[in-house]
Amino acid sequence: MTAAANPSAPSARTRVRRVATNAHYDSATLHAIIDDAYLCHIAFSDDHGAHCIPTACWRDGAHLYIHGSNGSRMLKRLMERDSCVTITHLDGLVMARSAFSHSMNYRSAMIYGRFELVEGDAARHAMETFMEKLVPGRQADVRPGSDKEYAATTVMRIALDEAACKVRTGAPNDDEEDLSWPAWAGVLPFARVRTAPVTDPACAIEAPDYVTRWRE
Amino acid sequence: MTAAANPSAPSARTRVRRVATNAHYDSATLHAIIDDAYLCHIAFSDDHGAHCIPTACWRDGAHLYIHGSNGSRMLKRLMERDSCVTITHLDGLVMARSAFSHSMNYRSAMIYGRFELVEGDAARHAMETFMEKLVPGRQADVRPGSDKEYAATTVMRIALDEAACKVRTGAPNDDEEDLSWPAWAGVLPFARVRTAPVTDPACAIEAPDYVTRWRE
Repeated sequence: MTAAANPSAPSARTRVRRVATNAHYDSATLHAIIDDAYLCHIAFSDDHGAHCIPTACWRDGAHLYIHGSNGSRMLKRLMERDSCVTITHLDGLVMARSAFSHSMNYRSAMIYGRFELVEGDAARHAMETFMEKLVPGRQADVRPGSDKEYAATTVMRIALDEAACKVRTGAPNDDEEDLSWPAWAGVLPFARVRTAPVTDPACAIEAPDYVTRWRE
Repeated sequence: MTAAANPSAPSARTRVRRVATNAHYDSATLHAIIDDAYLCHIAFSDDHGAHCIPTACWRDGAHLYIHGSNGSRMLKRLMERDSCVTITHLDGLVMARSAFSHSMNYRSAMIYGRFELVEGDAARHAMETFMEKLVPGRQADVRPGSDKEYAATTVMRIALDEAACKVRTGAPNDDEEDLSWPAWAGVLPFARVRTAPVTDPACAIEAPDYVTRWRE
């Protein structure tokens, strides 16, 4: 790729070494992987070693956002040192003719950097963006957050500057000499689907459009 | 819980502090979460800081297994220091009456410890267990791994001794004073489904049962 087509050149931390042909460093790929996720996994270390914590995430512009309770140990640590945020979508099992050529189709993104606090109006805006991402239209129906609730919540963000994606799609890549082996070859795909909404037994309110249209 | 019902008491690293009522330390919950996964995220640190790497995983008995190329930097690091393996399944978005009571239904498992090498016949057995987990029946059809392929592959495992799960299910938990707010409340669920197999265009072999029955 030319420099123009690849504005986010890899750093020492993000340069993909294994199957580097599957690497992508462009924002469009990165944003699409984040926007298709509700959760990320964050690696950070403290005196007890390395931790891998799942947490809800969302994107606004060139940052990935998370939130949590003010008392969260993880959120405190994330301001003190760099961490690594990873999102992975599994799209299918790749069935090759040879056992060792089996693979998976997936889309993954890794982001390195330091989280920063988001405060005041920016935190409110971030939480509203989160709700709009989760379920567009929901925000107008719910009891809005109070000053006390906002004050008890920490919102943080990490820049998407130092990031790398790895994507595998398509058919298996058997070695030439295995192509005649008489085994079916192809992809067994997965999809994440939205299934039938479950109304709270204590709820007598009619389901709004974003609920009735949820199921795919 | 009594000691008898809770054989794996939490360690300093695995004791769940946030929403501790969602914590589970029993093997049945842990095994079910691992067995429903094809991928885990592994946090470890090196001179560049913390990394969060997605990789395929499977369980055999009381260990979680991974594999990779002999040259993998991650696999080398995992033998030198403790790491944290996390698996998370997202089951739904929990719509509460108040904005800040929104949540997600999920099942997550965190495992701490040191990976150990699996070698020789045990490595072959582990890889066969992996294939059988991916697609039962597949193994008999494919070109088996050669001595050279096994020799180029590192298999590792981590004991499930120090682990904790966190599971949220069911309806939203609004505060009493929010229950009369006129918003629909309930769960918008997700499911991972198996979709139609995609045959390699270069493949003329008839699809076996495990392929024709793949789609749900």
